[in-house]
Amino acid sequence: MPATTVEFFFDFGSPAAYLAWTQLPHICADTGATLVPRPMLLGGVFQATGNHSPAEIKPKGPYMTVDLQRFAQRYGVPFTHNPHFPINTLLLMRGATGLQMHEPARFEAYCRAVFQAMWVDAQNMNDPAVVQAVLQAAGFDAASVLALAGQPDVKERLKAVTGEAVARGVFGAPTMFVGDQMFWGQDRLDFVREAVLAAR
Amino acid sequence: MPATTVEFFFDFGSPAAYLAWTQLPHICADTGATLVPRPMLLGGVFQATGNHSPAEIKPKGPYMTVDLQRFAQRYGVPFTHNPHFPINTLLLMRGATGLQMHEPARFEAYCRAVFQAMWVDAQNMNDPAVVQAVLQAAGFDAASVLALAGQPDVKERLKAVTGEAVARGVFGAPTMFVGDQMFWGQDRLDFVREAVLAAR
Repeated sequence: MPATTVEFFFDFGSPAAYLAWTQLPHICADTGATLVPRPMLLGGVFQATGNHSPAEIKPKGPYMTVDLQRFAQRYGVPFTHNPHFPINTLLLMRGATGLQMHEPARFEAYCRAVFQAMWVDAQNMNDPAVVQAVLQAAGFDAASVLALAGQPDVKERLKAVTGEAVARGVFGAPTMFVGDQMFWGQDRLDFVREAVLAAR
Repeated sequence: MPATTVEFFFDFGSPAAYLAWTQLPHICADTGATLVPRPMLLGGVFQATGNHSPAEIKPKGPYMTVDLQRFAQRYGVPFTHNPHFPINTLLLMRGATGLQMHEPARFEAYCRAVFQAMWVDAQNMNDPAVVQAVLQAAGFDAASVLALAGQPDVKERLKAVTGEAVARGVFGAPTMFVGDQMFWGQDRLDFVREAVLAAR
């Protein structure tokens, strides 16, 4: 019997995706499920679905920061509101896609470095010099990652995954799939766990 | 020491408010907190904050129905998607406000009847004849409730509570307050419980 998979559609620009990313490995370890990260471009999803960042509703922004901090405390993980939000993640997501395709062994370390810079260290990841410093501190050659991010096959793959997400009903991040059951939000991880257990 | 209160800002038009309303009495009974229902007009909150119904994002609508059904199953309560959604709840909310002000002993029975009609029996509560039938089946004289809903003091109170909600940061329904801690959504009831326990 094949292991159940949890597909994880994410964008580094989503703080809720960061929180989900801290918890999904535990859920998969506990249940024997396989985590399948699916880097997508949230901006493309918003454009295709007419959705917007929740932070665009004025009182929702400050509430969401409080809400994310409550969950971070519950999970026991660090979280810092990023004052440079929103951040254009196109190159960062292309980097993730490129590593997943061509250097999969380094994909996780890259995600860890970028998520940490965005939502723990609150770095300005709109600034190419900051991105370069973050990647080099994590042991990456920033120029190589940038070159990878610029490859046509990588650009196409990110577009294709984003299009697949939209076609499957995704409208925000993070979105998890267990088979054809869709779960939106880091606050639905308990349902993801239940779905995995029910599918075993 | 005064009992901790849980303020519950709601509108009958929100299915998530219905789910919260089924669970809050249990949380209050378990923790010794006092439930303070605050009927507000969600349409007024949306207008003041620039927020919209999540159902306006096309793929979000069907997902939300699935999501609400998952929670209803977890809570062990009935829930039916209302095909007549969205429903103009102005008169219904004025009725709730009027009863709360002038016949508080009947407020809960009224809320039960209206929530049940909206989110269990999926009635078309845009239709005055349906509203009349629902209220009369629950032992209310529909004409009296309508007269109460039309009183200037009742209309003013609903406006004032809606304005207070917006002033305190509310942008959607349901919203709960434990002291000055705000919690948005029926999916945050576990945090409400924790906040009440921490405040004791």
